[in-house]
Formats: sequence, C-alpha cells, structure tokens
Amino acid sequence: MTIGSSAGRIESDALGSIEVPADKYWGAQTQRSLHYFAIGDERLPRPLIRALGIVKRCAALSNIAQNKLDEKLGRAIVDAAQEVIDGALDEHFPLVIWQTGSGTQSNMNANEVIANRVNERLGGALGSKSPVHPNDHCNLSQSSNDVFPSAMHIAAVEQLQCLLIPSLQRLQKTLSDKSQAWADIIKIGRTHLQDATPLSLGQEFSGYATQVQLSIERLQDSLKRLYPLAQGGTAVGTGLNSSQGFAELFADEVAKFTGHPFTSAANKFEAMAAHDALVELSGVLNCSAVSLNKIANDIRLLSSGPRSGLGELILPANEPGSSIMPGKINPTQCEALTMVCTQVIGNHTTVTLAGAQGHLELNTFKPVMIYNVLQSIRLLGDAAHSFTEHCVAGIQPNAERIAELMEQSLMLVTALVPQIGYDKAAQIAKTAMQNGTTLREEAIAVGLVSAEQFDAIVRPERMIMPK
Amino acid sequence: MTIGSSAGRIESDALGSIEVPADKYWGAQTQRSLHYFAIGDERLPRPLIRALGIVKRCAALSNIAQNKLDEKLGRAIVDAAQEVIDGALDEHFPLVIWQTGSGTQSNMNANEVIANRVNERLGGALGSKSPVHPNDHCNLSQSSNDVFPSAMHIAAVEQLQCLLIPSLQRLQKTLSDKSQAWADIIKIGRTHLQDATPLSLGQEFSGYATQVQLSIERLQDSLKRLYPLAQGGTAVGTGLNSSQGFAELFADEVAKFTGHPFTSAANKFEAMAAHDALVELSGVLNCSAVSLNKIANDIRLLSSGPRSGLGELILPANEPGSSIMPGKINPTQCEALTMVCTQVIGNHTTVTLAGAQGHLELNTFKPVMIYNVLQSIRLLGDAAHSFTEHCVAGIQPNAERIAELMEQSLMLVTALVPQIGYDKAAQIAKTAMQNGTTLREEAIAVGLVSAEQFDAIVRPERMIMPK
Amino acid sequence: MTIGSSAGRIESDALGSIEVPADKYWGAQTQRSLHYFAIGDERLPRPLIRALGIVKRCAALSNIAQNKLDEKLGRAIVDAAQEVIDGALDEHFPLVIWQTGSGTQSNMNANEVIANRVNERLGGALGSKSPVHPNDHCNLSQSSNDVFPSAMHIAAVEQLQCLLIPSLQRLQKTLSDKSQAWADIIKIGRTHLQDATPLSLGQEFSGYATQVQLSIERLQDSLKRLYPLAQGGTAVGTGLNSSQGFAELFADEVAKFTGHPFTSAANKFEAMAAHDALVELSGVLNCSAVSLNKIANDIRLLSSGPRSGLGELILPANEPGSSIMPGKINPTQCEALTMVCTQVIGNHTTVTLAGAQGHLELNTFKPVMIYNVLQSIRLLGDAAHSFTEHCVAGIQPNAERIAELMEQSLMLVTALVPQIGYDKAAQIAKTAMQNGTTLREEAIAVGLVSAEQFDAIVRPERMIMPK
Amino acid sequence: MTIGSSAGRIESDALGSIEVPADKYWGAQTQRSLHYFAIGDERLPRPLIRALGIVKRCAALSNIAQNKLDEKLGRAIVDAAQEVIDGALDEHFPLVIWQTGSGTQSNMNANEVIANRVNERLGGALGSKSPVHPNDHCNLSQSSNDVFPSAMHIAAVEQLQCLLIPSLQRLQKTLSDKSQAWADIIKIGRTHLQDATPLSLGQEFSGYATQVQLSIERLQDSLKRLYPLAQGGTAVGTGLNSSQGFAELFADEVAKFTGHPFTSAANKFEAMAAHDALVELSGVLNCSAVSLNKIANDIRLLSSGPRSGLGELILPANEPGSSIMPGKINPTQCEALTMVCTQVIGNHTTVTLAGAQGHLELNTFKPVMIYNVLQSIRLLGDAAHSFTEHCVAGIQPNAERIAELMEQSLMLVTALVPQIGYDKAAQIAKTAMQNGTTLREEAIAVGLVSAEQFDAIVRPERMIMPK
Repeated sequence: MTIGSSAGRIESDALGSIEVPADKYWGAQTQRSLHYFAIGDERLPRPLIRALGIVKRCAALSNIAQNKLDEKLGRAIVDAAQEVIDGALDEHFPLVIWQTGSGTQSNMNANEVIANRVNERLGGALGSKSPVHPNDHCNLSQSSNDVFPSAMHIAAVEQLQCLLIPSLQRLQKTLSDKSQAWADIIKIGRTHLQDATPLSLGQEFSGYATQVQLSIERLQDSLKRLYPLAQGGTAVGTGLNSSQGFAELFADEVAKFTGHPFTSAANKFEAMAAHDALVELSGVLNCSAVSLNKIANDIRLLSSGPRSGLGELILPANEPGSSIMPGKINPTQCEALTMVCTQVIGNHTTVTLAGAQGHLELNTFKPVMIYNVLQSIRLLGDAAHSFTEHCVAGIQPNAERIAELMEQSLMLVTALVPQIGYDKAAQIAKTAMQNGTTLREEAIAVGLVSAEQFDAIVRPERMIMPK
Repeated sequence: MTIGSSAGRIESDALGSIEVPADKYWGAQTQRSLHYFAIGDERLPRPLIRALGIVKRCAALSNIAQNKLDEKLGRAIVDAAQEVIDGALDEHFPLVIWQTGSGTQSNMNANEVIANRVNERLGGALGSKSPVHPNDHCNLSQSSNDVFPSAMHIAAVEQLQCLLIPSLQRLQKTLSDKSQAWADIIKIGRTHLQDATPLSLGQEFSGYATQVQLSIERLQDSLKRLYPLAQGGTAVGTGLNSSQGFAELFADEVAKFTGHPFTSAANKFEAMAAHDALVELSGVLNCSAVSLNKIANDIRLLSSGPRSGLGELILPANEPGSSIMPGKINPTQCEALTMVCTQVIGNHTTVTLAGAQGHLELNTFKPVMIYNVLQSIRLLGDAAHSFTEHCVAGIQPNAERIAELMEQSLMLVTALVPQIGYDKAAQIAKTAMQNGTTLREEAIAVGLVSAEQFDAIVRPERMIMPK
Repeated sequence: MTIGSSAGRIESDALGSIEVPADKYWGAQTQRSLHYFAIGDERLPRPLIRALGIVKRCAALSNIAQNKLDEKLGRAIVDAAQEVIDGALDEHFPLVIWQTGSGTQSNMNANEVIANRVNERLGGALGSKSPVHPNDHCNLSQSSNDVFPSAMHIAAVEQLQCLLIPSLQRLQKTLSDKSQAWADIIKIGRTHLQDATPLSLGQEFSGYATQVQLSIERLQDSLKRLYPLAQGGTAVGTGLNSSQGFAELFADEVAKFTGHPFTSAANKFEAMAAHDALVELSGVLNCSAVSLNKIANDIRLLSSGPRSGLGELILPANEPGSSIMPGKINPTQCEALTMVCTQVIGNHTTVTLAGAQGHLELNTFKPVMIYNVLQSIRLLGDAAHSFTEHCVAGIQPNAERIAELMEQSLMLVTALVPQIGYDKAAQIAKTAMQNGTTLREEAIAVGLVSAEQFDAIVRPERMIMPK
Repeated sequence: MTIGSSAGRIESDALGSIEVPADKYWGAQTQRSLHYFAIGDERLPRPLIRALGIVKRCAALSNIAQNKLDEKLGRAIVDAAQEVIDGALDEHFPLVIWQTGSGTQSNMNANEVIANRVNERLGGALGSKSPVHPNDHCNLSQSSNDVFPSAMHIAAVEQLQCLLIPSLQRLQKTLSDKSQAWADIIKIGRTHLQDATPLSLGQEFSGYATQVQLSIERLQDSLKRLYPLAQGGTAVGTGLNSSQGFAELFADEVAKFTGHPFTSAANKFEAMAAHDALVELSGVLNCSAVSLNKIANDIRLLSSGPRSGLGELILPANEPGSSIMPGKINPTQCEALTMVCTQVIGNHTTVTLAGAQGHLELNTFKPVMIYNVLQSIRLLGDAAHSFTEHCVAGIQPNAERIAELMEQSLMLVTALVPQIGYDKAAQIAKTAMQNGTTLREEAIAVGLVSAEQFDAIVRPERMIMPK
C-alpha cells in the first residue's frame, strides 16, 4: 500500500508499509493519521508536544532505573526527548486534534520521531526501527492510554503556572493599585444600572481586584487534582507490562524536571477512563471568564462616551477606532477580553460534553479536551496580560465628571432613612424627581429636616462605610 | 409486594400487585414509578398531559376506524381521553420528569387512568383492567416509543401557536408602533458603547422590531419539522402490531382535532431514535432568547439614570425598586426577561446534550427534552407578554435629554468626511475633544470649511440616511 | 390604584395602595410583583425561603445586640422569622423566580409577611405597618442587595451539607463495597469500546468509586467560598445605614444557628456585584454531573442485553419496561440519572451566563442563579440516592457471561509483548482474528512460544497488575 | 511613536506614525493591532479574508457605477481586491481574532493592503496613501460596521455551499446506499440499550440517512437569513456617507460574483447591531452535530468487539489502534467525528453568548462569532467527508453475528400480543428468561399457542412492518 506521492522513504507498521517524506522523522502511523484525518488545521499545541517529550524523557529514565532499558539506548532516547521538549522537532509533529480519541497517533508520532532520531544518531537507518523500536523501546512500560493523560496534566499545569496565574497576578496587582490610588474619589453607585448610594472608585475597583484574587485561588485549588498522573496504568489502568514502582519513579522524575509536585494517581482506572480533573479545571477557567467579563464590561460601561455616556473613566487611546468616524476611540481591550471570555465559556461546554461521554476503560475525547483547555488557558493568560498593560494600567478617572454625576443623585436620600423612615424619604426622592429639584430643597420644604441637619447627614464621604 | 402505606386498592402489572391510593385512577406502573423515582418535584407539564390525551383520543378513533377496537369501548376511551385533554384528571398524573427516559411510565399513567375511568363508568372495578385493559385497549396499535414522541411534537406545536408566537407578535407590533411614533426623534448613535453618528429613535426601535419579526419567522420555519408525528412506528419504528394506514389515519385525526397540519413522519426510525426536530426548535428558541436579551439590555441601558446614566428612555414605574433606597425605580421587566433568556439558553444546552446521547432505536432522554422545550416556550411567551405590556408599551422618550446628548457629539464630524477627507476630519474631532470645544469651532478655526458650509453639512436630521 | 379582584384588605407602599387577599400576610410590594410578573410558575424553592427566614432572624438578633432594635419588637420578629424558617408560612411566599433581578420583591415579601405576622400578634392591624414596619424594622441595617446574596449562600450550603454530599457519600460507599466484593472477578477491559486487556470488575468499580470520592472533595472545596456572606454591605457594598460590627455579629448568628462556619465576606463589593462563588459551585456540580453520567452510562452499557448486549451486569428489575414489549426490563435508574445530568449541565450554562452579565454594583440575575443551583443540588442529590438504592446496591454480576467474554479475547496477546515484541504479537492477533482461531493456537503455530510458555504467560489473573 | 524594532518603513494614521516591516503591504492600523493584541494565534480564517476581498471588489465597482470613484483608481482597487480573494496576499493579513470587536482592524488591514498594493502599481510610495487612500477610496461609502458583517455572511454562505452541504450530501447518499443494500438483513432492535423487536439493518441506516437529509434541509433553510447583507448601513445603519442605491448595487455585484442570491438587508440596524442570523446558523450546525454524534455513536456501538461487543458491523481497519495492544483496531473515524461534534456544540455556546451581549448600534463580538461559525462549518464538513470515505463507505455487516443475536431475542414475543394479550406474553418472556429457554418452548408449554401457530406468527421477517 502506498499513500502519498512525494518521493520518500518506506516506513511500516502492523498494517503494512507506507511512504513518508524523506526529510521527516515521523513513521508509518503518523503518516496514516495524516492520510485518514484530513480534518481542519488545528494541530497539537506546543505545550502538549513539550509534555509528550517530558513523558518520553521521564519514562526512559525510569526504565533505565528499573533495568528494563539498556542505558545507552535509554540515554539516547532521553536526548531526543529533550529535543522534543525544546521545540526543535516541532515540524515533525504534523497531526491534528481530530484523530483517534485516545491520542494514540500523537503518542506514536512521538515514539516514531524519537526512534528515528536516535537511530539516525546511532547509525541505524530511518524506518529500520533498530536499534530503537518505537513501541518496544520508546513506549516501553507505557501505553498511549497512560502517556496521553499524563501529558495532558503536565501541559495544563505548566501553562497555568507559567502563563495564566502570573498574568492574573499582574492584573490583580494593577487593579489593587488603582483601588488604593482612588480611595478618596467618591462616586455614584449604580444598582440595576440605576443611580444608587455612593461609594469610592477605589471601593469599586477593590471588588474587581477581589474577583481576580479569588480566581487565582480557584486555579491554585484545581492544581491538586492535576498533579496526580495516570502513568503506570498502561492499557486499561492495571499496569500490565509495566513493573512495580514504575509509576512512582516516573512521577518523581516529572516533578524533578518540571519543578511542580506531580504524583502518581492513586487510582489509575479513574485517571484514564475519565478526565474529571480537566472538566473541573475547565469549570474554574469558565469561572475566571465570568469574572473577567464582568470587569471588562464594567470598565467599558464606565468609560462610555466621551460625551454621551457615563464618562467616569478615560481609557488609553491605543488606536483609531473607526474606519468611517474620524477621531473615534473605542474600548478595544475590553472587547478583545470579552470575546476571549465567550470562547472560554464555549470551550467549557465542549470539555464538559467530551468528559461526559467516555466509555468504560477509556475516555476517547482526549485530544479535544486538552486542546480546549490549553486554548482557554492561553487566551485568558494573553488577554489578561494585554488588558492589564494596554488598558487597566493606563486608566484615568474623569474626576470632574464623577463629581458632577454624584452630586445630582437622588439616592443620597438613603442617608436620611434612619432619621425620618423609609416612607417619608421615598416621598422626598419622588417629589424631587418629578420637580427636577434637589433633595435638599425638597427635604427642607417638606419640613422633616432643617438645612443644617440635611447638610450634616447627607454627606457622600460619610456614606461609604457603616456608622 | 406492597409499596406505599395508605389504605388503598390493589393494582397489578407484570411484576406483581401493588397498593395504590383508593381515590386515584392510576394503576400499578404509575405507582411503581412514584416509588422508584422520588427525584425532584418537576412534574409533567400540563401541555404534555393534554397532548397525551390527544394521542389516546386519536389513536382510539383510528383503531375504531380500522375495526381493531370495539366501538363502544373505543368511544368510552375517547370520552375519558377528552377529560385528560381538558385537564379534569390532572391530579391523577403525579409522575416527575426524572423517570424512564422513554416516558413509558407516563404513557402507562395515561393508559391506566383512562382504563380505570372507563371501567368505572362501564361498571367494572378499578384495577380490574376489564372491560378495558390499559395495554391491550388504551395502548392498542401503539408503543410508548411512538406515543411519547407524538405527544412531544403536539405539545410543542400547540404552545408555539397558542402562546409564544402570539406573544412575540404583540411585542413586534408594539416595538413597530414605537418605531413609527418616534421616527423624527434624532439621537446619538453608539457603537462600541461610544458616541457615534446619529440615527432616529424610531430607526433604533425598527432594529428591535425586525429582530422580533425574524424570530417569529424562524419559529414558523421550525414548525415544518414538528408537524410529522412518530405515531405508527410502535416499538422500534417498524410499526409492528399496528396496521397499514394507522399512522396516516392518526395524523389526520390529530390535525383535525388541533387545527394544525400534522402529518405522519416519513421515516419513523429517525422520529423515535432521535429528536433532532426538538433540538432544532430549541436552537430557534435559543436564538429568540439572544434577540430578546439584546433588546432588553439596550432598553435597560438607554433608561439608565435617572440622573447619572444615559437617560434617553423613561420606563413605567411599576413598583418600588429598593428595600433600602427610597424612591428608586428599576428596569425590572428587563431583568425578568433577561433572566428568562439565560434560562432558555441553558435549557438549550440540556436539550442539545440530551439529543446527542441517544442509543440505537430509541433516544431515552425524552422527558427531559420536552420539559426544557416547554419551559422555554412558556417562559419566553409569558416574559415577552409581560415585557410588552408592563414595559415597552409604556416607554416614554426623554426628548430633552436625547437632544442634549446628540448636540454635543463629536461624531457629527463624520458628515464632513466626503468634503475634507478622513484624516483632517479626525484631526478636528481630536482637537475638539482635547480642548473641550465644539466641532464647529474647531472646523472653522482650522480653515477647512466656512461656518455656512459647516451648518449646511453637519445637520443631524440629514445624517440618518444615504445621500 | 387597585389590582386584583378578590375581596381583600388594602396595603400600601411608595407607589400607593393596593388590595391584597385578606387571608394572606403579604403586603403591597408582593402583590405588585404578582401582578407585574405573571411569568411561568417556578416559585422560590423552599430552601431559599428558609434561608430568608434565617437572615431575618439573625439580622434581628444582631440589631438587638447593637441596640438598634427594641428588644420586644426584635424578639417578635425572631419568632415570626422562625415560622418562615420552619415552612409554616410557605403559602405566603407566592412569588416566582422571574421578578426583579435583585430578589428585592422576595426580600420585601419576607419583610411584609413577618411585619404583618408580628403586628397581628401584637394587636396591630394587618397592613398598618405598626408597630413593626417591613422596611424600618424587618429590613433594619439591611438591603435586598445583601439579604438576598446571603440567603443564596446559606441555602446552597445547607442543601450541599444536608442533601447532596450525604447522598454522594452513600453512593461512594456502595460502589466501593461492590469494588471490594468483586475484586476477584476478572473480565475483559474495553478501550475505544473495543476489546482490550483484562481487569477485575472490582477494579472497574474502583474507578467509579474514585470519581464519586473526588466529586465529594470538590464540593467540599467549593464550600470555602460559600461561607463568606454579603450581609453588612447594604445597598452597594459600603454598609451605609448599618453599624460597625453588624456584619460580623450577623455571620456569627448564622454560623451558630446553622452549625456551618459562615463568615462575613472580606470584600462586600465583590459579594454583591458578582456571584462567582455560585458560578464556581455550579462548575463543580457540572463536574459531578459529568462523573455520574459516565458511571450511569457504563452501567447501562455493561447491563445491555439481556441476550444481545454485553450482559456482564444484571440490574434490579424494578418495573415493566415497555407498554408494547412484554417482559422487557430497562436500565431506568441510569436513564433518570443521565437525564438529571443533562439538566445540571444546562443549568450550569444558565448560571454562567447570568453570572457573566452583572452590571456595576449589583448582579441582577440573582433569582435565576440560585434557582438553578438549588435545582441542580436537589436533582443530583435525589437522583444519586435513587440510583444507589434502586440500582447500584442491587447489581449482580453475570459471572458466566463475564468469563465467556474474557476467554475469547484476542487482547490477551498483549502479555506476550515483553517476550516476543509488539510486531510479532500483532501478527498473531491479526491471524487469529482472520482465522477465527484462538491466540494460543496461532502463537504456537507461529513457533514463537511453546504451549507451556503460553499457558504460563497468558494468564488473565496475572494481567491485572504491574509485574 | 515607534513600535516594533525591525527595519521597515513608516506608516501613519490618526494617532501618528509607526514603523512597519518593509516587505509587508499592511499599514499603521494593522501594525498597531499587532502590537496591542498579542493574544493567542488564531488568525482570521482564509474564507473570511476572501470575503473581505469580495466586499472591497464589489464596493469599488458600485462606487464606480455611482460615479463616486475615479474609474482608473477603482479598477486598480478591483484588481488588488481580486488578489486578496485569490489568497495571493494572505501573508499580509497577520491579525488575530482577539482584536477590536467590530473587526475594524481587519477591515483597515484590507484597506491598507489594497491601497499600498495599488499605489505600488501606480507608482506611488508604500505608506503614501496616494493616489489611493485606505479610508477615502478603499473604504469609500463603507464602514467597518457594514463591511465586516457583510464579509461574515459571504464567508458563511460560501463555506456552507462549497464545503459542508456537499459533504453532508455525500454522507447522506452513502448511508442511503447502505440502507438499500441491507434492506433484507433482519436484526434485533434495541431500545433503552436492551433487546427489542426486530428491524432490518437497512431500516436502521434509513434513520441515519434521514437525519442527515434533514440536516441538509435545515442548513438550506438557514441560508435565507444569511443572504441579506448589511452593506450600505455604514456606521450605525443609516447609510450616512453612502449614496442611495449603493446597498442594492453592492448586493447585486456580490450575487453576480459568488453565484449566490445575496440581497441588501431590509433593515440595516438589525444587521449591524445583532447577528441573530449567525446565531441561528450556529444553532443549525449544533443540530447537525447532534445528529452526527448519534450516528457515529451508534456505529461505534454496533461495531464494538471484535469478540466481546455487539459485533454486528465491521469497520475498515485503517490503522493500528494501540501502542501497547498488538492487533487492535478502533473506531477512530467515529472518534474524530464525535470530537468534532463536541467542538461544534461548544462553539455554539460561544456564538450564543457573543450574540446575546451586543450593545446598542453595534454588536462588538463579530470576530469571535464568525471564527467559531467558520470553524464549525469546516470541521463538520471535513469530518463528515472523512467519516464517509474512511468509515461508512467501507462498513461490512457481520451477517452471521446479526442472525445469531436476533434468533435468541426474547422480544420476538411481542408478535404474540395481538393473539394472547400483553399480560400472558409478558409471562412467557419472563419464564424463558428465568429458565434460559426459548420463547417457543415456553409459549407452547403454557398452552396458549400451538407450535404451528408460533411458527406462523413469530417470524422476524414479518415483524418489520405494520400488518
């Protein structure tokens, strides 16, 4: 059987021989996948290829330690795996997400690339599977069914720790800094999008900072169920063809290499048949998206204008906003971030549905699950960073506008309630609204408080805390 | 076996005898379901019980016509089914949604209630199954597997035709009336929530009216795949134990009874193994929710204030808005409607997931699918009605505020572009913004247009249509 | 203004007077809500009414302690709140979910009912608001904006602790017991729904038990962000009109009353403007639904048959399965549970969307959020209980069938890989499949292993663990 | 201001000058977007770039026809736009999805690339904006706010017509061919995943073919709301700065160029402020995913085995299935397709959420909406093609296995119901199950039918249609 037309070399697998491009390290199974799965162009993301390299590296070291793998061959595998980790061989990982649901073809892709790379170095022919065989050596003590889930957890943890959490921490600090800087700017509050009692702009931003802080804490909590690795379960969770202790040795190697406290999963059957830990993580990412959507929406709303909106905040003018309306500046960082939030929320539906549909000993929605989780982490991390640097850090309050809006608010009447009761206060507000007058005028007119009392009680700066 | 403790009579089924309450018409299978499915309290909704009555009525008439059912017994079944249709026997339908996924227990509930009701009238004992047997007569030529899907379609169509579509039509007309009434109120447009070129308030509302109009058209389009009924497929779609022509006779009876053009589904296998027509309908309801969410959000935003928001619209003051802030009025109809929209969108996820998971000859997520579809129809219908009557119909434009906001807009500069080009127009807007001046001042200062030209070109009332 | 036609008494609020039914304790604002929100029939669930009672009780006690409320009136409010807690006044809480998005009308419903109940006892007239006023006494130091969120958290925590977690614990124990009882039943594993290497039935169920165990742990983790209460923030989070220390006193009272460690939220702005803690909880419930869906689906699949399916498990025969096919027994508990799972997953979309859309100082999707969260908790709790008692506890393995399927599996060849390598093992399996022979026959025929070696290596009971 | 470090030329816009790479045609606004939106790597998909080219081409032709654009310049724009259409300039479109929510930066990217390309040809300097200006000529009579929505509809329609619908048609035909070829293979039906009455394998596949047929019809129905284009609405829907008749001329040009019946949208306000037509389309794609998920799941289930599953179907063996289990073949095409379905369903959540959140005159979630819609179309189209060619076309029925399973089914007893009634038939099935005997033995033993009668009635080949 020959698939593909460009001149190349012959590789073989259990189904026969097949031609592969001469300049690529991949083998027969990768080539077959390319042929049979010409679907979309969403390839395995870099962090996942890196994680596959980490798995192959740490498995080889564990096999050497257990005397199951010749040290020389093993060390050569470790070296080639390091190249996979470093991204030097990315062009040899051509497969898309839409392949076998176990990720077997990408695991074999890694095995084939590493075997050929090693064999080339050790003087063997590409495709010879000698001295290193993709299955018998690179996949030794392993199965796609434990390799791929392990790589999924490793990739997710690394991206959380290196990208998303630091990005949210910067956002949290920037919001918190603004909160402190603006502690004395008193503004009108709004509930139901209607005028309400006052608060400080700093207090408003303290709510945002708290949302991001809690988001970080949720992500950190989710890590504890991502550290356990499926490796050692092999085909169905029993560990057939691996040796006692391999799973633990492997987890130690990964922990040492990555600097994150990975462990061997207590129950391998759960770790391969289900990916609830990723569904949980996706739920936390979904919650982060909800938080960030709220914050970006509020900032967009508070900066609406410049003349016909709320106009309390002035955002940095990064670029022209319109192809037809000259001089227009738009809250584009808010827009990019909220678009990202809709993507993350939709990705969560995908991950949920994929997680819910596994069968018996193996969930076969692995590639789509990790693709979406990694996309969500990447997008939230990048967008939070962009939003911090190009929007939040440069926000200026429009102090004049803020003061003007607050002063004319009817909801300052609330401060009179302890004195005159809810019903009479309501009457004052209603009359002022109807007459277009001020609360002060109506309150005095109705005779319930004197001008002095009104001025003593209705003071916004005293209305932003309990008595 | 005895389940349940209250004094009652004994009913029996294939699994043995069981005690049921003496004052209820249901039989053994209903009683078993009550015992084994003590889950939540979401009962079969009224429109679905009604539809089960319609199925039993029309099946009996078809069986009589085919000489498979004794006319006297058949007519008695028709009479009892009419009582089910009319809601007179609702207390005898106690089952929840969370039962067998085929709805068999609710089909048997209908069979049992009708059989007992008929037998009582004809002098038989309750529970005797004589002269009318729940399976052999009430379910004659039928299976739950075609009865329940038929009832699902009938209930959905009736609720669309009697509740949701009329409610949206009233909303559409009200929005359209406002659009016409407000054709001459010129206001500032807003894109990206930022000031943009002007349009009339009537044009703005014409967009909403169009959204609702298209929503109605989508619902009407979805009907064509709801009219085909599964009835006649019996157990697996083959029609075993029914007779040639039964399916068509039945559909004719349903069409005659309901006044809607129901037909017999061309492929009964599809109609029982999948419920794509309901997934499609749910998608259309989801789209309606998206449209209504946009409209309600816009109206909430345009009425924000009363003093520190956009303030262009004044909504009816239906009730006090706050337990602590006297005199507060909130856009509560918008809130109720947008909450309904989130429910409908979530229900759509449920229906999608349920529709995607069927196995082989039968989708066994029927009750949860129709429960969600009917809830979505009901909520959208009721909320659109409430929103129309208690909000949209009473909206008043705040003409003074609208004029004030429009006049100060910098985006009127766009009208100068054909004259002076984008780049120079941008410079004028930018300078006016920086200096807090008017466009007119800056445009004349920069020497590109004369005062006369400016006044002739920058006229909002001419800016709301093509040249 | 008169709304409603039945003879009744007159109640009044800031918008005027209105007639309410003579036999109901509610007042003007509740009545207005009934009139203006005739949408659906989903009322506030019992746990939420109870939680509103708890808030009113604990707020009154805190006000007494701070000398802001006359002790006699305060104690009377506590007594009436206790009746609300106990469910004795449920008929006086008629409002639906689809009301104002802050839940103000339900907070006022509680205030009105308690005020009227107290006034009746103390000799005042219903509707007189004297001696106890709904706003000035029952709502003292409070706003709907902190009352409703506090009630949301209290209701969610109580339902988790009293219903869902205990229900999952019973399921976990039952699955775990089965896992231990079936430790020695060796069966064929299946990956990709295709025959794979063996495992024990006990191992398979250990995966399920682990999934439920982790589900419980996730729920317990989510509690830490549910214990903090918004109470004390009043209108916009600042605590206006409450006194220093009220928030903490209140949280202590709630903790004492409920036995759960509630605290005062560190940032009240976040706690009212966003409900991320509920979005997070909903994500955890979503994850539980994913886990339970997997388990129920597997059990449904393993029990497929009785003669033409996998047939490894025998489920309890609780009820007749078909209205047309006599003798049919179906996996109905699996069906009810998986339907519940689709509902919970859809509810999560609703909660997510509602949580993402709040504006500025107040999220106004509160009722729909807590309605969905409480429905999800209730349904998962009830369905897990039903599934445990009526399905899992009674499952019997079909030992004969299990043995028969395992013995004919070709995947036992995997045990030969360490001996003869992947490629040759593959050849043996392929030939046996083509010839319809056994692995043993082919392995010996091909001359790679002797009969003795084969029998020593290919032993399923040794294939279920690492070497 | 200088952003970016590589040697390049200077381009400028309303915010000043900026360095861009010397070998790229894009200008200042594109460069700014690259700098400010370093988020993810999801670029505008090819069909959307093509559609932007089509818009620019047809707008230029319409402007020429209306004498608003110099013919020589206009023709040059048309030529450059053709290069955009053909993909020759794809490397000059570097922007990601996560930019301004109006797609303005991508519209300006097109304007800048075309202007520079034309100016280069006409002897002007890159960046000179002369003789052709990106805004004043390439964007003449247009705004991003009508350009981008028009491009969205054009791209969606072209991809539906050229990719997805043809792919589904091939799948439908293949399923239909199988249905006809297998009309006489009688097999056991399964409801609730439990044995049920028989049907033919052809009937089973006719259900699948019908699902796909209806899916095609739904897609075709959705086209009618995609043909109307927003073009001519310019900034806010009013058409400011365009001329009467431009919208219609443009739509005609697009219709002529693409061969699809595009029209000018009747209401431009709706067409820019909302994208309900895309939400609707996404709902239809969601429904297609539900259908395909069902079909792929069934085929995966029916082919489970080879020895320990249902085993009724034999799928093509395209590639080795396992890295550890030699000889394993998996239903990988089903897996790829069902993974795609989860993606499409999640994308629909994203599109729904994005569609629901627009504000006033402009929905600013445009890029994320069209990105998801186009991904869903592409993935469904590619995956359906792959599934057809590499799976469905090569499926073989396992006739022996099918016959064996059917013969032992107890549900054949259903055929006796019209003769002996439901209750007695149930007794026979129950006894046969308990005794492990055949229906025939038990039916005769119980004396209700003779052997001759049994053999005449219980004939599977007569049980697959009504009497």
